[in-house]
Amino acid sequence: MTTIDPVLNLATLIRCPSVTPAEGGALAALEAMLAPLGFNVERVVMSAPGTPDVENLYARIGTNGPHLMFAGHTDVVPVGDETAWTHGPFSADIADGEMYGRGAVDMKGGIACFVAAVARHIEKHGPPAGSVSFLITGDEEGPAVNGTIRLLEWAAAKGERWDACVVGEPTNPDMLGDMIKIGRRGSVSGTLTVFGVQGHAAYPHLADNPVRAVIALADALMDPPFDAGTADFQPSNLEVTTIDVGNRAVNVIPARASASFNIRFNDNWTADGVKAEIVRRLEKAASDDRLRPGRQPVRYEITWAERPSHVFLTRDDRLIASLSAAIEAAIGRVPKLSTTGGTSDARFIKDYCPVVEFGLVGQTMHMVDERVAVADLETLTKIYETFLERWFADAGD
Amino acid sequence: MTTIDPVLNLATLIRCPSVTPAEGGALAALEAMLAPLGFNVERVVMSAPGTPDVENLYARIGTNGPHLMFAGHTDVVPVGDETAWTHGPFSADIADGEMYGRGAVDMKGGIACFVAAVARHIEKHGPPAGSVSFLITGDEEGPAVNGTIRLLEWAAAKGERWDACVVGEPTNPDMLGDMIKIGRRGSVSGTLTVFGVQGHAAYPHLADNPVRAVIALADALMDPPFDAGTADFQPSNLEVTTIDVGNRAVNVIPARASASFNIRFNDNWTADGVKAEIVRRLEKAASDDRLRPGRQPVRYEITWAERPSHVFLTRDDRLIASLSAAIEAAIGRVPKLSTTGGTSDARFIKDYCPVVEFGLVGQTMHMVDERVAVADLETLTKIYETFLERWFADAGD
Repeated sequence: MTTIDPVLNLATLIRCPSVTPAEGGALAALEAMLAPLGFNVERVVMSAPGTPDVENLYARIGTNGPHLMFAGHTDVVPVGDETAWTHGPFSADIADGEMYGRGAVDMKGGIACFVAAVARHIEKHGPPAGSVSFLITGDEEGPAVNGTIRLLEWAAAKGERWDACVVGEPTNPDMLGDMIKIGRRGSVSGTLTVFGVQGHAAYPHLADNPVRAVIALADALMDPPFDAGTADFQPSNLEVTTIDVGNRAVNVIPARASASFNIRFNDNWTADGVKAEIVRRLEKAASDDRLRPGRQPVRYEITWAERPSHVFLTRDDRLIASLSAAIEAAIGRVPKLSTTGGTSDARFIKDYCPVVEFGLVGQTMHMVDERVAVADLETLTKIYETFLERWFADAGD
Repeated sequence: MTTIDPVLNLATLIRCPSVTPAEGGALAALEAMLAPLGFNVERVVMSAPGTPDVENLYARIGTNGPHLMFAGHTDVVPVGDETAWTHGPFSADIADGEMYGRGAVDMKGGIACFVAAVARHIEKHGPPAGSVSFLITGDEEGPAVNGTIRLLEWAAAKGERWDACVVGEPTNPDMLGDMIKIGRRGSVSGTLTVFGVQGHAAYPHLADNPVRAVIALADALMDPPFDAGTADFQPSNLEVTTIDVGNRAVNVIPARASASFNIRFNDNWTADGVKAEIVRRLEKAASDDRLRPGRQPVRYEITWAERPSHVFLTRDDRLIASLSAAIEAAIGRVPKLSTTGGTSDARFIKDYCPVVEFGLVGQTMHMVDERVAVADLETLTKIYETFLERWFADAGD
């Protein structure tokens, strides 16, 4: 079976230009890898008004439990400045021990290795002692409306149940094996619009400069910190990501100012709790008399972005231990169990089964010259292979 | 002489649609008022690369000193939402004792009254005991490149010298006679660009959010106050008039942020001194370690707007006393001598002769439904007329 070689698998996937939301041949190539291994492969097109149709893939081998899901995506972010790439973004060229290409680490590489690991497992042991599924979306880097959420709903509706999931996103900051993600912070975004009174810059008492107010409110959002972190999570952090007024007349005090913010919050908070704290801070700052001696409270509106991401933490000891031991066996070090970083599709999967994330080294993801060490592909394949053996062995206890 | 009626003079001027920089017939109408009174009227077109040609007017009656200048402009700001006007912006309609029209108070009204005052003076006393000039620009509300500055240079180059000047801008905040302007604050504007490091909102330690920095720098510009005011001036005041980032991606920390500001400064400062203080505040805030523990100072650039306005204060006792006494005679109250408000063309005139500003009530200037009380036109005409008598009498002492 050629699919035991992750390097060939990845080269095949990189050469499919599956820039989100295009399928680009990547799911067809994956189907061509999985079907010969004995997987029942289903291609699932999801549609929703106002968004492009998205192709997804669900493949399962085995009919009994325990049932392990591998989740990921074949879509990739745009290549950026293609002329700046040392090797073509869809070339899969290898130079100095590294394979170049968009998706090399995020996350066609993870898929390529898991396919190889499953192929090796079947070659050595025959079909797994339970079931293995691939839940692969083509809409992770885009709006994510027609992807993992709907694919999970679709699979669950036809009776699929899972005991554990590994997401193959690039979780390692520096070296392969550094880090398993066992949870993720939540994320809430919003936009604040502050209303002042327009006027002449020479008569500030006749106007009400919303720039002063938006600065004070933005300051109140960022400071003091929301918390100092928890046992499993780093501190919650809010960034004001933009302030915009758009006033071109330097002698005019503008009528309004807006600011947008994003907070990544830990398990001290729920999404609703974070929103309530944000409103509390804004209310307090808006009516702070030191900011506006003798004036009415700042008038403002807040709009929340759709779909907050909820915080989650996985406590499945067997899942974490199997993966951690497989990593230690391959690289001689115990990985860190982390909840850092951005959101991922794991936040949807956790509603169906325990989920962890482990893949390649993420340093070049989304960048020009995204690339992966060829040696890492072999190591990750070994880790996944050992993990499969241990998890099925443990799960069968 | 019909020009003794300021209401008719103003109606004629309002009906000329002289939206800056268009002449709109307004200077021609003014010429038609002044020539029959005995004025030598010169229409002066000024040109400069990159700006529209502008028509201006200089008219003088008399050849000897003392020489009094009346300065102003016939151009007006755009009408804004014309459908929102109760009466047409060029209609000069009178309703409930008020005349409506763009320029009614800023400042065709002032011109109309001064013309009427001079006409009455000549009718009663014959030609003035000296000279009276009108220095009227069509470029005060626009770029002001081809207006008062160049007209003064042009007149001075041909030998004109003045002993005093009254600018007819609307100086009264609430009631006619409230306020003579005897000086103006200076004005300096600039734009600050703060450079950060773009990144993902979930990894703020890998990025450097310029929004945090621009907030801190903007704060340092506005607080603490620059001074507490002086004997003749209100406190200097800085307003940040815009902050702009333009980042639409809520999960991205942006690369740069900009802020513009305008300071109105009093006679504690020179324009260069104010700039130095601004730089000092920015430098201090940019390297404040509490703002950015363990990080390099904020990287920023500052660009200054062209042509700062210099602060000035007029100390011509005779000029001020003549005008103040004329006001007291007309309305029974002593006007306040003020240096508040924005810049005006008086800042250019003060390089040639002592200058004060006194005109109508400014409440509706630049607004929809700009209008003037008809009674105020008669009162201001009387004030100007009495002022002419007193100033020439005193100046002849």
